[in-house]
Amino acid sequence: MERRILLTECPDAKGLIAMITGACFRHQFNIIKNDQFVSEADSRFFMRTEIEGDFENGNGDRMVDEILSSIPAGGRCRLEPETRKKILILVTKEPHVLGDLLMKSYSGAMPIDIVGVIGNYSVLEDLTAKFNIPYVTVSHEGISREEHEKRMLEAISKFESDYIVLAKYMRILSPEFVNHFPKGKMINIHHSFLPAFMGAKPYQQAFDRGVKIIGATAHFVTESLDEGPIIAQDVIKVNHNYSAESMARAGRDVERMVLDRALGRVIADKVFIHGNKTVVF
Amino acid sequence: MERRILLTECPDAKGLIAMITGACFRHQFNIIKNDQFVSEADSRFFMRTEIEGDFENGNGDRMVDEILSSIPAGGRCRLEPETRKKILILVTKEPHVLGDLLMKSYSGAMPIDIVGVIGNYSVLEDLTAKFNIPYVTVSHEGISREEHEKRMLEAISKFESDYIVLAKYMRILSPEFVNHFPKGKMINIHHSFLPAFMGAKPYQQAFDRGVKIIGATAHFVTESLDEGPIIAQDVIKVNHNYSAESMARAGRDVERMVLDRALGRVIADKVFIHGNKTVVF
Amino acid sequence: MERRILLTECPDAKGLIAMITGACFRHQFNIIKNDQFVSEADSRFFMRTEIEGDFENGNGDRMVDEILSSIPAGGRCRLEPETRKKILILVTKEPHVLGDLLMKSYSGAMPIDIVGVIGNYSVLEDLTAKFNIPYVTVSHEGISREEHEKRMLEAISKFESDYIVLAKYMRILSPEFVNHFPKGKMINIHHSFLPAFMGAKPYQQAFDRGVKIIGATAHFVTESLDEGPIIAQDVIKVNHNYSAESMARAGRDVERMVLDRALGRVIADKVFIHGNKTVVF
Amino acid sequence: MERRILLTECPDAKGLIAMITGACFRHQFNIIKNDQFVSEADSRFFMRTEIEGDFENGNGDRMVDEILSSIPAGGRCRLEPETRKKILILVTKEPHVLGDLLMKSYSGAMPIDIVGVIGNYSVLEDLTAKFNIPYVTVSHEGISREEHEKRMLEAISKFESDYIVLAKYMRILSPEFVNHFPKGKMINIHHSFLPAFMGAKPYQQAFDRGVKIIGATAHFVTESLDEGPIIAQDVIKVNHNYSAESMARAGRDVERMVLDRALGRVIADKVFIHGNKTVVF
Repeated sequence: MERRILLTECPDAKGLIAMITGACFRHQFNIIKNDQFVSEADSRFFMRTEIEGDFENGNGDRMVDEILSSIPAGGRCRLEPETRKKILILVTKEPHVLGDLLMKSYSGAMPIDIVGVIGNYSVLEDLTAKFNIPYVTVSHEGISREEHEKRMLEAISKFESDYIVLAKYMRILSPEFVNHFPKGKMINIHHSFLPAFMGAKPYQQAFDRGVKIIGATAHFVTESLDEGPIIAQDVIKVNHNYSAESMARAGRDVERMVLDRALGRVIADKVFIHGNKTVVF
Repeated sequence: MERRILLTECPDAKGLIAMITGACFRHQFNIIKNDQFVSEADSRFFMRTEIEGDFENGNGDRMVDEILSSIPAGGRCRLEPETRKKILILVTKEPHVLGDLLMKSYSGAMPIDIVGVIGNYSVLEDLTAKFNIPYVTVSHEGISREEHEKRMLEAISKFESDYIVLAKYMRILSPEFVNHFPKGKMINIHHSFLPAFMGAKPYQQAFDRGVKIIGATAHFVTESLDEGPIIAQDVIKVNHNYSAESMARAGRDVERMVLDRALGRVIADKVFIHGNKTVVF
Repeated sequence: MERRILLTECPDAKGLIAMITGACFRHQFNIIKNDQFVSEADSRFFMRTEIEGDFENGNGDRMVDEILSSIPAGGRCRLEPETRKKILILVTKEPHVLGDLLMKSYSGAMPIDIVGVIGNYSVLEDLTAKFNIPYVTVSHEGISREEHEKRMLEAISKFESDYIVLAKYMRILSPEFVNHFPKGKMINIHHSFLPAFMGAKPYQQAFDRGVKIIGATAHFVTESLDEGPIIAQDVIKVNHNYSAESMARAGRDVERMVLDRALGRVIADKVFIHGNKTVVF
Repeated sequence: MERRILLTECPDAKGLIAMITGACFRHQFNIIKNDQFVSEADSRFFMRTEIEGDFENGNGDRMVDEILSSIPAGGRCRLEPETRKKILILVTKEPHVLGDLLMKSYSGAMPIDIVGVIGNYSVLEDLTAKFNIPYVTVSHEGISREEHEKRMLEAISKFESDYIVLAKYMRILSPEFVNHFPKGKMINIHHSFLPAFMGAKPYQQAFDRGVKIIGATAHFVTESLDEGPIIAQDVIKVNHNYSAESMARAGRDVERMVLDRALGRVIADKVFIHGNKTVVF
């Protein structure tokens, strides 16, 4: 008895749930959990089904083929195993998000294997080394953005990973760089409640505006800076006593919690990308 | 094209979702939203399906019969129309929860008709009258608890209602009184984060204990005081500056919001009672 | 024994707290509560002191004069009585914020007297009339913005008020209109978490962007639309199931709670305007 | 120019703020931040004053003496330097709270030096060793509670510490053990929203009761299990989908955040113990 995730996405039609759950039943899979959603605006159907049963001898693949032949054109269906995901982390100088991921991987709280950490400074090498994880420094100093991104791509290519996490990687990425990766592979944590305070120094912007709440946003990285599909957001209250610096300090816990929640959902195959939005089951 | 809620509950078995959604499909109902849950501890299956289609000529009833004949013994299935629910409200002296319900009913924010308000004081008669809703005072003064509950039951029996809401009705109800009503009919808002601070004066108890958070709990009323199935809870932060009185003041907004959320779920048929707990879709 | 609020604001200097609390002590006032704040950026000092004692025979005024003569140039000091504030409300069609204020004024939960309600539609006249409060309709239809604002100013001038609350008044105000009122007199509730989604249809904007949290912002009205000093903000979580419409529905409770909190602080003289920010004690 | 915290606590009296801030002024200390509170129930005055100035040549001590001679009998006053605090941590098997403290100490996010970790299992030795901090295993197996506590006291006595943090130390402490330490020295994180679910297995209790919110409580340890003064609490929402185990998993983030917040306040000398409560500035 094994457990897998069945992910279906297609134009909406009558009877889709009956058809898919019927296929699961005929192939002797038990449904542990099922979530579905239809986007009204564009009539798109999304369904995530946790199933349990015997996937030997192509039983699962045949079911997927059956479903694929029944859903409307333009649909997708696949089975994902429940395995530990491989994560590559990009950092700059701040240790809190990296530290959190290292700890959660080490303790088993999150089913991830951190395959490597790449930083544009070497500051976080010592912390990474404590957990016996390779660290590569790719300095941006004295070279052009193009050259730096080229070296980053080289360093990244040395690691096999399911997801690349920007754990407070403080460099702006060019569209060319982003386009090297499939959509949905790269996740960023932005230290503001997007779309408020896009771009640089969001805590300073928040301080200048005098907001009473600050937040963090985890999103998939796309060509447009800070405009990719949002996966998770959260906030904390601040007040006039906070400086830009103490906002930044207070914001660290939200940043890591939001990234944590987003990554947890992504690696559990609970997140569909839907245009510039997400469906998060 | 009409919309109804299909509610199914039974011992768990393989293929239930496929069977029920298949029945919907065969009877030409479109599924708008579907939620299901299996309680692991006792293998009980719960499913709520919003469907749209033609319920004329017994089409819906036939589908329910079909489902009933297919689910395991000990199951239930029924169709609920999406109608405004009739609410009877019991109060004592505090106006905030009553006021909120009156306003939400008046503005259409909540699809309820308040059929009447019964209080053991007449304080809230003036407020109720503004909204042209009958108010009955059943004073408890000078009579025994038994006699008061008898008179309350008489007053209640004059109104036809789907649900009875205890909107800060501050009298303890005897098991005899509670047993006059079907399980799930009566909803109470308790002004603490149950099971902390059961019984009388929860804000005073919270003050005495020095807690840093206070809350409110909406639950179905059962024979055991403050121990019925919890529907919704929420909290707010307090600190050493709060007296028992200012906690009570601050708690009012949570009380009405929690009741609001609970009642909203109940009248949308999103709440299953499951032993001493609830499944809230 | 009477209670008043002593409000002091001036350039920072050594010994200000000692000087002001010393003045209170010499004039035999007991300090019930004291809050102060120094803005580092511009070295400005703010202090709010709740005092109790004998204000007869100019005792309070003499203390204020003493303080004024001791604080640095460019400072202010005044005593505010703890009285019910007079509120004028501007509305359009949505009843939830108005309803909340009417109820809180009626029940005494908020120490305000609502002197009148002015709407650009007559929809909310019936609700207002239930509480015996005058309602004036100033329709904007068929006339220019200038003419409408002229008529609004006329209508407003008929009421004596401490504060004007825009309780979902959905018209953009011209700088000319805003400048008729002293800074800090007019409070608006904006249905987004500013500065995200300024301007029109914030819930539609939030839906389009796919955010996971929506919010509301209460702020003082200034010439620049949605850019005045923020008094209070709060948020609620949403997800892919929400349409723009259901976000708007869900947002109503946050809107009224945020306005409630903001107005509660303002009428208790807990809010200082500090440039384009607020200090909220 | 040095910064220290002036902590005063005494029976309430008129003019205390003026007297204390006057003393600061006369001794040429600048007040950076000041908080005070009077408990109405027992008329007790608490004040925390962050001051900056010259503490050389006994200037600070003389001021404290002056204040002590002016406050009512039964009062206390002292100056605390802003130094890194020494923390000794007690653990059992769960790594998340320990990991968080190790990381925050390592990164400088919290000004603490972890002097050692003592566990009744050796599970967390590897994690502790990564940060070059001594770990002592004091197994409870095969010995009486008395004997185990004796050995724990011995192990504890080998470390010099300002505070002892029970970071998910899952053994019940006898009053004899607790009484070896001054009040306020030992801080515990309890994995429930106290006073709900005191004692063992709070997540199982929460699951059995069907609550919709779970929480965590950081408190000073006293003789009575889970009844010491509460320093911080927080909660997260759960629903019917949660098992006792997944509640426990979800609760971990709240546990470490609450302990973090509590410890942060304690080491900044922001927490006064007041009977069985706390005043947290």
